[in-house]
This record gives sequence, structure tokens and C-alpha cells, in this order.
Amino acid sequence: MTAGIIGATGYAGAELARILWAHPEIHSLVLASVSHRGEAITGIYPNFWEAAKTGSDKFGSGILETPESLIRRSDIVFGALPAGTGEAYAKASLDRGVSYIDLSADFRFDEDEAVYAAWYGKSWRYPELRRRSVYGLPELNRRRIRELAAAGPAVVGNPGCYPTAVSLACYPLLGGPLRKTPALAPGSVIIADAVSGVTGAGRELGRPYHFPECSGSVSAYKVGTHRHTPEISRTLMKMSGAPVPLVFTPHLGPFNRGILATVYLPLAGTGTAEASALPPGGPGKITEKLALIREVYAAFYKDEPFVRVLPEGISAATGRVRRSNFCDISVHLDGTGSVLIVESAIDNMVKGAAGQAVQNMNLVCGFAETAGLEALPSLF
Amino acid sequence: MTAGIIGATGYAGAELARILWAHPEIHSLVLASVSHRGEAITGIYPNFWEAAKTGSDKFGSGILETPESLIRRSDIVFGALPAGTGEAYAKASLDRGVSYIDLSADFRFDEDEAVYAAWYGKSWRYPELRRRSVYGLPELNRRRIRELAAAGPAVVGNPGCYPTAVSLACYPLLGGPLRKTPALAPGSVIIADAVSGVTGAGRELGRPYHFPECSGSVSAYKVGTHRHTPEISRTLMKMSGAPVPLVFTPHLGPFNRGILATVYLPLAGTGTAEASALPPGGPGKITEKLALIREVYAAFYKDEPFVRVLPEGISAATGRVRRSNFCDISVHLDGTGSVLIVESAIDNMVKGAAGQAVQNMNLVCGFAETAGLEALPSLF
Amino acid sequence: MTAGIIGATGYAGAELARILWAHPEIHSLVLASVSHRGEAITGIYPNFWEAAKTGSDKFGSGILETPESLIRRSDIVFGALPAGTGEAYAKASLDRGVSYIDLSADFRFDEDEAVYAAWYGKSWRYPELRRRSVYGLPELNRRRIRELAAAGPAVVGNPGCYPTAVSLACYPLLGGPLRKTPALAPGSVIIADAVSGVTGAGRELGRPYHFPECSGSVSAYKVGTHRHTPEISRTLMKMSGAPVPLVFTPHLGPFNRGILATVYLPLAGTGTAEASALPPGGPGKITEKLALIREVYAAFYKDEPFVRVLPEGISAATGRVRRSNFCDISVHLDGTGSVLIVESAIDNMVKGAAGQAVQNMNLVCGFAETAGLEALPSLF
Amino acid sequence: MTAGIIGATGYAGAELARILWAHPEIHSLVLASVSHRGEAITGIYPNFWEAAKTGSDKFGSGILETPESLIRRSDIVFGALPAGTGEAYAKASLDRGVSYIDLSADFRFDEDEAVYAAWYGKSWRYPELRRRSVYGLPELNRRRIRELAAAGPAVVGNPGCYPTAVSLACYPLLGGPLRKTPALAPGSVIIADAVSGVTGAGRELGRPYHFPECSGSVSAYKVGTHRHTPEISRTLMKMSGAPVPLVFTPHLGPFNRGILATVYLPLAGTGTAEASALPPGGPGKITEKLALIREVYAAFYKDEPFVRVLPEGISAATGRVRRSNFCDISVHLDGTGSVLIVESAIDNMVKGAAGQAVQNMNLVCGFAETAGLEALPSLF
Repeated sequence: MTAGIIGATGYAGAELARILWAHPEIHSLVLASVSHRGEAITGIYPNFWEAAKTGSDKFGSGILETPESLIRRSDIVFGALPAGTGEAYAKASLDRGVSYIDLSADFRFDEDEAVYAAWYGKSWRYPELRRRSVYGLPELNRRRIRELAAAGPAVVGNPGCYPTAVSLACYPLLGGPLRKTPALAPGSVIIADAVSGVTGAGRELGRPYHFPECSGSVSAYKVGTHRHTPEISRTLMKMSGAPVPLVFTPHLGPFNRGILATVYLPLAGTGTAEASALPPGGPGKITEKLALIREVYAAFYKDEPFVRVLPEGISAATGRVRRSNFCDISVHLDGTGSVLIVESAIDNMVKGAAGQAVQNMNLVCGFAETAGLEALPSLF
Repeated sequence: MTAGIIGATGYAGAELARILWAHPEIHSLVLASVSHRGEAITGIYPNFWEAAKTGSDKFGSGILETPESLIRRSDIVFGALPAGTGEAYAKASLDRGVSYIDLSADFRFDEDEAVYAAWYGKSWRYPELRRRSVYGLPELNRRRIRELAAAGPAVVGNPGCYPTAVSLACYPLLGGPLRKTPALAPGSVIIADAVSGVTGAGRELGRPYHFPECSGSVSAYKVGTHRHTPEISRTLMKMSGAPVPLVFTPHLGPFNRGILATVYLPLAGTGTAEASALPPGGPGKITEKLALIREVYAAFYKDEPFVRVLPEGISAATGRVRRSNFCDISVHLDGTGSVLIVESAIDNMVKGAAGQAVQNMNLVCGFAETAGLEALPSLF
Repeated sequence: MTAGIIGATGYAGAELARILWAHPEIHSLVLASVSHRGEAITGIYPNFWEAAKTGSDKFGSGILETPESLIRRSDIVFGALPAGTGEAYAKASLDRGVSYIDLSADFRFDEDEAVYAAWYGKSWRYPELRRRSVYGLPELNRRRIRELAAAGPAVVGNPGCYPTAVSLACYPLLGGPLRKTPALAPGSVIIADAVSGVTGAGRELGRPYHFPECSGSVSAYKVGTHRHTPEISRTLMKMSGAPVPLVFTPHLGPFNRGILATVYLPLAGTGTAEASALPPGGPGKITEKLALIREVYAAFYKDEPFVRVLPEGISAATGRVRRSNFCDISVHLDGTGSVLIVESAIDNMVKGAAGQAVQNMNLVCGFAETAGLEALPSLF
Repeated sequence: MTAGIIGATGYAGAELARILWAHPEIHSLVLASVSHRGEAITGIYPNFWEAAKTGSDKFGSGILETPESLIRRSDIVFGALPAGTGEAYAKASLDRGVSYIDLSADFRFDEDEAVYAAWYGKSWRYPELRRRSVYGLPELNRRRIRELAAAGPAVVGNPGCYPTAVSLACYPLLGGPLRKTPALAPGSVIIADAVSGVTGAGRELGRPYHFPECSGSVSAYKVGTHRHTPEISRTLMKMSGAPVPLVFTPHLGPFNRGILATVYLPLAGTGTAEASALPPGGPGKITEKLALIREVYAAFYKDEPFVRVLPEGISAATGRVRRSNFCDISVHLDGTGSVLIVESAIDNMVKGAAGQAVQNMNLVCGFAETAGLEALPSLF
């Protein structure tokens, strides 16, 4: 099979190339770029220079094509483009009978154009494409992705990086057996606080990413206004069956890969007034309660190939999912046992972008879901 | 004046040395170490080698003395020691008529030994010392620190790093003119989510601080059980006059200096149900509400020499308070205007430890409060 | 095939596990540890937790075995152990008819025990093993490695990280067509100046690797006394056919992966007296001379799968070989054209250790030389 | 006194502001910028926001003025501008009777316009200014700087960062008592290999300084063509009294502050042929020789306030001079005792730029040479 990547010069596109280069079902890669067409990919990424020496020559000429020419040659197309610029390529792919995996926000809102328009300031050119599209969080929509693709060429809206980490942290509580007890306290707000590595900001130069000013500093950005907020809200609502108030705060940290999300979920049936005055460990009941929740989380994700619920004593860390498609989850309780605290770690470039897109391709194409994604995460 | 530092080989002790070296009122420094006595400080910190070349020779021989000998020679004593090990030195200092600034947790709980014992697993050897001690958060207790010191030699319990960042983020809302409107929603829990640089873990080697495994990774630790929790709770209660439920989660990030705390404060009189579905910017009322809150915060801290309330459009970042005693605060609202989000940044080694200790010394000794702490923060 | 890794808990062992996990010819991995036997590998490396979820379960139980039990079960054995501790395992492997790839210095000196003893302070227990051993720098010894392995089970002494980077930088000049003109100036000393990332120091904790003191600092170590010096000298002598005086200085830099070696090679037939007074670019002859040298380097390494001679305008950088088995080489001249300056970059954990060991296994076992090593290097 | 900084928005300018802010003789600072005039400095550097809260208000309005207006108000003027842009300001300052400290290359070549023009591609507008200028390496030219300034307003050409580190490494051998024995081997080339932190590249955005691509990578740049080469050559010639062939290779490393230079100096009267085959430690004669050289270095720099010759067993590291004006030097020999290897570490922003400029101001103005530069270097 031939895979095409439109937007191959951005970081997500380059990460797609890295993963697909080692994918057993992909025998050649076609790369396209709107702004760099005609150039060699090795001019943009000298790390790819003479990579074919190792024998895995999937790039061929390595010259960046136009999207149109790419679509003609590909059996599956990935769009790694800014929001609002890829719809025509999705349409062209479908018209040619080829599925399209979109890494922008364009296909993350099903048919709800109003929310998209409100947050992204754009309208859709081909709204009808959404009838052939699905939100590509496999843990939530695996069956729908497969069914849609079985019915013909499909568009998959690959989730955002933060929504992936935050949603997977909440799913067992909101949509699984914990829905009833211990459930989310009625009327409560979910707080999602997350920190991302700098690759999340992409390849474009910017003052906050200038090494001397970025190195060694951590800061929040777009507090209360980040565009991933409505995407997370939608996903939590689908999981729980009802609207869930959400506050989401993203941060930028001085590292390259990874997102760590800390999600605060108030539990029903608990009082909090005296909370923090208690010493740690507290009554045995809290320890038992936490063990129970951990068991339920582990059981919920037992068959998920890429979600790992960590055992007691280990907290999720971005350094332990590096370059893998894993989402690591650890569960914790505050001192009174009234707030569930879930730590969720992904590699923002893999499970948060290119890896999840390949997982979606695997589902769409009927490959093993883990094909090309078996890499062991490395500590450094 | 001669200042003595017991525990000079730890990171807080070395940072105290660095600041006091440039302090206009301190003419000599005596250093002590229990485990390294008799050694030269330059053996532990080769960066101090021949520092006297510049003319500022405050170390003298630079040989680490015993605490007992140090106390005999000092006009003010700093204890930068593990919890539970410095009481005798505090007592000896007071007996000699010299004030003692303690950087451990031993004097952060006033006379409430029960809470200390529950969280630190130790009891007090000289509980009566607390009658001469004060919690050294100058923004809260400036007057008491001065009054106590005026009455005789005193002990100052220098606050923990996280409590400093979190408490200053909450004070204008809990204890200032915002107490009434917009006030904290009744019954609500304050969530404090913070990330610290690695110097916070100190000089002792440990796997999480081994460069290859620490670099590039962020993780939570001691979730729901960190010892700074009761200290923050106490301080918030003092500020608000009533108990405030608190959930506190510390994280470790791959950088050296700084703490960024993100504090979530639910506001009274607001509903949150429809919250996150709204686009950013929202109705003008939210913008107005935030501007009002920012004004109140700025007015509240107007005369504080080390608290800066940032203008609109700038979010607090650890990189902008580096090596200064500043606490930078930025205020934000979620999309519905129902949760106040405060970002608070300090240098954990300065305002979070040694700098605040020097600020306390200045208050105790009647120096200008900012003496030795005027350094301009640097971006890198 | 089953591969066994003795010393699986060290960084080189863990990197071997990461690479072999994705190797198409290796179907199971047996791990052994002298100090951690009986423990689970996931206790040491939590990043390996539930890695079998992706379907690539090569670890089996993941319990660390004894070396003896490992040797009984393996078709190829890797020793990732300190110098002087693995000979008995090499012997046991050979006795069982299984080849042994050694990542220590024990088999890097052919039969020259005197040099080994002088630098490592140890003698050999089984000197006769050297008759079945070969120095595993494939670019130099590919044929011998294959021949030896064809004749029976063999021991491969995997090169050190610095020697790999430095030797490959010199080979075309010392041993290739440049040997005659422009040749190394007679009597001249080769200066090799290199900087390594911190993973090169291994998993053991140490003050120079404590994040707060390591981060942001670069320093030299073991100047004039590093044990890789005689290994480099031997290899350069093999390449050139005559002794080559060498000065080697290693440095430690604040990054995880990579070695950048800068090698200074004085050229014959050039005067240097007026050298540095000339402006850059200089006479066209220097540019021509450099282009010629670059062509010769490129031709020399044309068929080497893992050596890339970079085109004009790009200087070798560790960030562009990250996680790949590539050695990137760029050639430069000083302003007078009298000193050839070669920059050579490898990932110290891959081409400098585990990757090269797998390359050697591929040669020994008759696999494609690049099997398991085709990964595209990534920029971050 | 009032100090003026033209080019206050660049990193060198901002570092000057940071140091002068704490300088006891400077009571106000005037800032100018050609491209940002009329803006507030806090818009460019939000870390300076409300810095006057600490009582050290030297910025006044903090509005960036024009250079002309600045010169009218200043008692000493610093130019932190690109090469070829500051001559007119130097002239205007002198015309007003005020000395000018230039941080560009414009005044580093005495009256040798040809070399400047060849390397910088520009000619001088006011060549006659060189008659009132001096190269500002205090260790070499302290007397001349003082004498020139005593005779009237002067221009000081502040040295480049690399030249400072490299020249100070060589001075005792080339110009001191070691000149005779052990002297530099006749006809030999000095190799200077250096790595700089990223602040050396300044505030302007650039791909090599984009965090994701800069972080974790080290590379060489401008090999054989860096403009600091002729400056180093000139200085070494002044030190030794004769031309000294030099090869200089700069590298970029993933850290913010610091330069580590490794300088290789072949010694006279030694053969090198058998060099690297010898084990470390070698004959006692080498140890003795090194001890002698270290003593001579230490004696040579004994009275220099900012040069520290490190004792045996400690190698110079950038992390130990951080934020100080120190240059740390450690001396080493290769295994045969024939090449002297000197490691030289400075903070590129301090001794390599702003700190040395302040040291020059102190000399020019007759202040204590160390005024404002006494800060203790810190480990992190």
C-alpha cells in the first residue's frame, strides 16, 4: 500500500513519516506540501538524508508533491494541515475512493458546525463530508470507525492531543462501571490541568519556543480559551450521556515530547469540608476505595492495546511513554477520598497525533490495530 | 553583622550563602554542617573556589564549623536542615539572644503540634519555642514578625515553597476585598496544581533526579499526601477566617528553578452547567468581571515589594522570576466566568526558600525589607 | 531465534531490549541480571509495563534470570556488563555453540592483553577466547566478522562509543584513497575532541549526573586518561598501517543521547604559519580542495549502510542521528586548508553501543545487516 | 552616575541592564533602541515588570529612547549593537566627553582596518576613533585601558566571548614565564575547540534555536570561518610577540549560558610518536610536569580578580561560573606529556560580554575593578 501525507513538512507530518517508514503494511510514502512543493524533504529534514541506505526506501525521490498529485497515487491519505485548509483534499480523496485521516480540528465535531465555527472562526465548505466522518478516538469509537470504513471510503477526525489524554483519564468514571458508584458528584465541575512539551507548538518559530526563553521555564497559555476545550467537552458528554462542566488549562513545559494531564473528578456521596486537615494514609477506607477504583480502571481498559493502568505506587510520567502510542493512567485520591485525581500521560506526537492517526488507519484498512505501533517506550 | 547558616551544604543553605554574600548588611558568613564539619565549603561547592578574589570575602576560612560554634559567632542564625533536627539550635540561638530563621517545617504550625506530628511523624522537643515563633509569610504576618522580633530574639518558621506560591495566589480572594463579591463559592474545594523544578528535591542523589531519566519528563508525586498540604490549608484558613477544603497535587518538571502553581477557585453566584460549550471571549460581562478581579488583585498587592500582579495578556511563568524574590500572579477566568484560575510563579530557591528567609531576616533585624533582594529577574 | 541479554538492567541492556523488541528475526528475548535476578524487568523499567499489550510479547515472564539459565535458552547472547566480568559467560556461550556479542572492553584488544591490563587494571581469565574473537567495527572488519562466525560460534568485541565516532571520522583519510594525497602530515598528532550525552555514563547515580548540577553545564573529564584512548589508537593504526599519535579529550554535555566528535587531522604538504590571518572563503583552491575531500569521503562510504557523508553546508549534529544507527560525517578545512576538521555524530546508545551490537549480530547470524536498524532518525 | 545602554533590547543589552541594576556606582540607567524606540522595556522583557517595587528604580520611565537622546543624558555609554552600526554613537559620546564601551567587533582590531574589512565585509566610517580606543581584555591591557581613560574619553572594544575564553587559556604559556620552558613547540598549530550556550546566538529567532530542534543536540557551525578567529589570532600574537597559527572550531550546545573552550598547545622538546599507547598516570615525570605547569598558571593569575586556576582533580565546567565574571581554567597533559590541554570556562553573557564590559567601565571610571561583579557563581 502507498500512504500519502499532505503537510509532510510540519512536525506531525514528519512524525507520520517516521512511523509509516517502519509500518509493515506500507510499502511506499508520498509526501506533499503546499508551501514547499518541488523541494526535497531532506532539505527541510536533513535527518532524513540518505535514509534509504538502510534499505527501507519508502520515500522514493523524496520530492514534495502537490496534494492533488499525491491523492492520485495514494491508497490512504493523511492530512496534517492547519484547521480549515484540508476539506478539499478530504473530498478529493473520497471521490477517488480513498479514505482520509485528518489531523486538524475539521472533523472532530461530527455535524455540529456551530461549535466549530464559534471556536475556529470558520465555516465548512463541504459540510456533507461529515456524514462519512467519525471522531477517531478508537477507545470510544472503534466499532464506528470500522463500520464506516467497511461501508466505503471514510474520513477520520483524529483527536487533539489534550483531548486524548484528558478523555481517556475520565472514561471509566464517566462511561464505565464507575458511572454509578463512586460516580461523579452531581453538578460538579471537572478540572483538567495539563502540561505539554514544545513539539506541540509545531515547527513554526515563535518567541515562546526560542531556546533561551523556553528552556527552564513553565507557563500557562490560552487559559480558559483553548480550542481543545469544546472537543473535550463533547467527548466527555458522549462518554457520560450528559453535559459535564469542564475547566481546562494548558501549560507549556521545557521538554520536547509528552503531555501530562491531571484531571480532578469530585466523587458523589462524599463530604469535603474537613478534607485537608487529615494526615495522609488516613482511614483504611480511603485506601480500599482507591484500590477498588484502580481495579475498575484496569478492568475497563484491560483489552485496550494502548492504555495502561499503572499499579499502585507508580504515577504516570511522560518519560515512560516516550515515542510509544501508550496512554499511561494512574489513579489517586485526595486525603479525604472525595476527589479522584487521574494522571494521564501520552507522547503528544504519537498517541496525541501521528501514532493515533496510524492506529486509525489500521482500523480503517483492516490491519492489526497495533501494526507499526509496537515500539517499546524508552526512558530517554 | 555576622550571619550563620547551619546546613550550608544543602541547596537551600548554598542559596542562602549566595544571597547573603551580596547582602549589604551582612559582613561575614559562618557556615556549619553536621555531616561535613571540618571540610572546606569549596570541596562541596567548587563554584565557590577563590570567590574572595572579587573582594567580597565573607566566608573567611570557609571551613564548615559545628552548629554550636556557629551559634556562638553569629548575630542571626539560619537553619536549613531536615524537619525535626534543628530545634536545639533554635533554642541555643534564642538562649544566646539571637534570632533564628528556620527553613524546615518545624515552626510552620504555630502551637499545633498534633498536625505537625500527624504529617511529619515526629514530636517536638521544645514545644515552648513556639511562643517565640511566627510563620514567616511576610505578606500575611509582616506586622507580627516585626513585633515579635522587637520584643526579643525570635524564631521565624520560613514557609514551604508550594505554600508560598499557592497562598499568595489565593489571598486577595480569601482575605481581601474580594471576600464578599465575587467570593469563593460556599462549600467549594480549592484545587491547587503545581509543578516544581528539580532543585526543590535538594542535593541528595535519587533516581527521579538522575539526568537521563529526569530530563524531558514530567510526573506527579505524593498525590494527595504531600506534607505541604496541611501548611497550605492552615494558611488559607488564616486568610479566610474559616476552613477551606483543599486538594493539592505537586509535580516534578525537567527544569532547575521555579514553581508554577495553578489554583482553581470556584466563584459564588455562578452556575457552571453550560460552561464549556461556550466559545471564548464570551459575553462582555466575563471580560469585565476579569478586569475587575485583576484590578482588585493589583490593588491588594500594590505595596507588596515582591508580589507582581501581571497585566492583561501575560501569564505568569517561572522563567520571568528566575533568581528573584518576586512572586508573579496572573488571573484568568474559565469560559463561563465561574471559576477563577490564578497562575502563581516563584523561584522555589528564592521566594520559595532562601530569598524569603532573607526577607524575614530583614524584617527581624529592621533592615530595609528588600535589602539584598533587589536583583532584576533574568530571562535565562 | 531467541536472544539473551546479560546485564539487561543497565542502559545498554535496556536499549538492546528496545531494539531487539522490534527486530524481525528475534522472536523472544531472555533477560538476565546478576544483581536483580528474580525481579521483574518492569520493576526496574516501568516504561516496559504491559508492553505486551501491543502484541509484541518477546519478554515472556519478564523475570530476570541468571546468566547461566539465559545461556541455556538463547541462540545468541549479548553481554552488557562492566569490563572484566563477562568472560566466563562468553566461554559458556561458545561452549554451548552460541555466539557472544560483548559490549564491554574485554574483547576490543585482540590478543594484546598487555594494553588491556595497563588501562583496565585486570588480567584475562580465558585469554584463548581471543582466538575466536573479533573487534566489531563492521566498517573495518565486516569480512572478518562474517568469516569468523561462519567458522563456528564467535565472540564480537563491540567497540566503545567514542572509538566508533572518532575512528569512522578518520578512516577515509588514514586507510582509504586519501592515504596518499592529501595525506596526514608526517609526524603529526591527531586531536580528537568529543562531547557525549549523559546516558553514556549509565544508570548508576552520581553527582555529575544529578539533574540540577548536570543541567546546563558542560565539562571535560578524564582528560588525557580516558580508557577509550588505546582503543582508538589501535583502530587508527589498523586503518593506517602505522602508529598514529593521538590526543583524545572527552566532555560531558547536558543532553541524553549522542556523541559529537571533532577530529583535527593536519594535512601533508601544507604550511600553516600564516594560517589564521586569512579571511574565510580564501582562495578558490581551498574550496576546491575541500570539495575533493568530501567527494572522496562520500565515495569511500558509499556502500556503508550506516555512514552518511553530509553534503556541503550541513555540519554533523547529534540531533539528526537520534535513535538511529547512523554515523553522520561532515568534513571541513581551516582557513588555510592545512588542517582537515571532521565532525562525526552518532547516537551513543545506538551506533555507539546497542545498535552496533545488533549490526554485529546481523553479520554473525547472516541476517540483513540493517535488520531491526532501519528506523528513520528523528529531530526530537 | 548615569549609564546608557544603546541596544538594550538584545540579550547583551538586557544582561548589562541586569548587572548595572545592582552596580553600586550607577544610580540610573538610560535605555535606547533603534528598532523599539518609544516602547517600554517591559514590553520586550516582561521579567522587568514593576522591578522598581524592590526599591532599586534605575530605569525611571523605562521607555526606550533614541541613541542621540541617551548620549545626552549619560556619563558612560555602552553600545550593544551589531558590527558596523555603532561608530557614530561612539563618536558622539567622545564628542560629548563621555567614554564608550563597545560590545561589537568594531573596536577589536586597533587600527588594522584591513583585517576587520576582510572578515566583516565593512569599512570604517571614523577610522580616527581607533586612536582613542583599546582592546578591552583587562588581563592583557589593564594598564592601557586606565591610561587611555585618564587622558580623556575613550572607546573600549570589548572582546568577543570565544576570544576571552581561548586567550586567557593560552596567556601564561604564550606570554608568561612558561614562554621559555615548557614553551609552545616551534611551528605548531594551536587548536581551540569550544562549545557555547544558545544565548550566544542572541534574541533573534532562528531554526537552530527553535527549542524542539535545539534541545538535546550539539553541532559545530562556521567551521574554519568564524569571525572570532582573527580576533583570537591577534590576541595570541600580542601575548607571544609572534604569529601563532590557530585553528578554531565553535560548537552550539543545548544550554543557555556558558562557553567551554578546550585548547591544545603542543609543547616544545617532546616527542609524540609513541604517545597514546601508554597507560594513564604514566611515569612520574608527567605528573610532576603537570604540577609545575599548574603552579605557573596559578602564579600568573594570582592577582587577577576574575581568573581562577583550579586545583588538581577539578576540570573547568560552565556550570561553576554561571552568572559570574569568573574565567575558570584547568590544565591537563595528554598521556605522553607532550600536549598541554587547557579547559577554560566562562559565562558567555558575563565575562564573555556584559560582565567584562562592566569590568572595563570600572577601569575607565576608576571604580573598584570588581564593583558590581562580586556575585558568587551558583551551581544552578
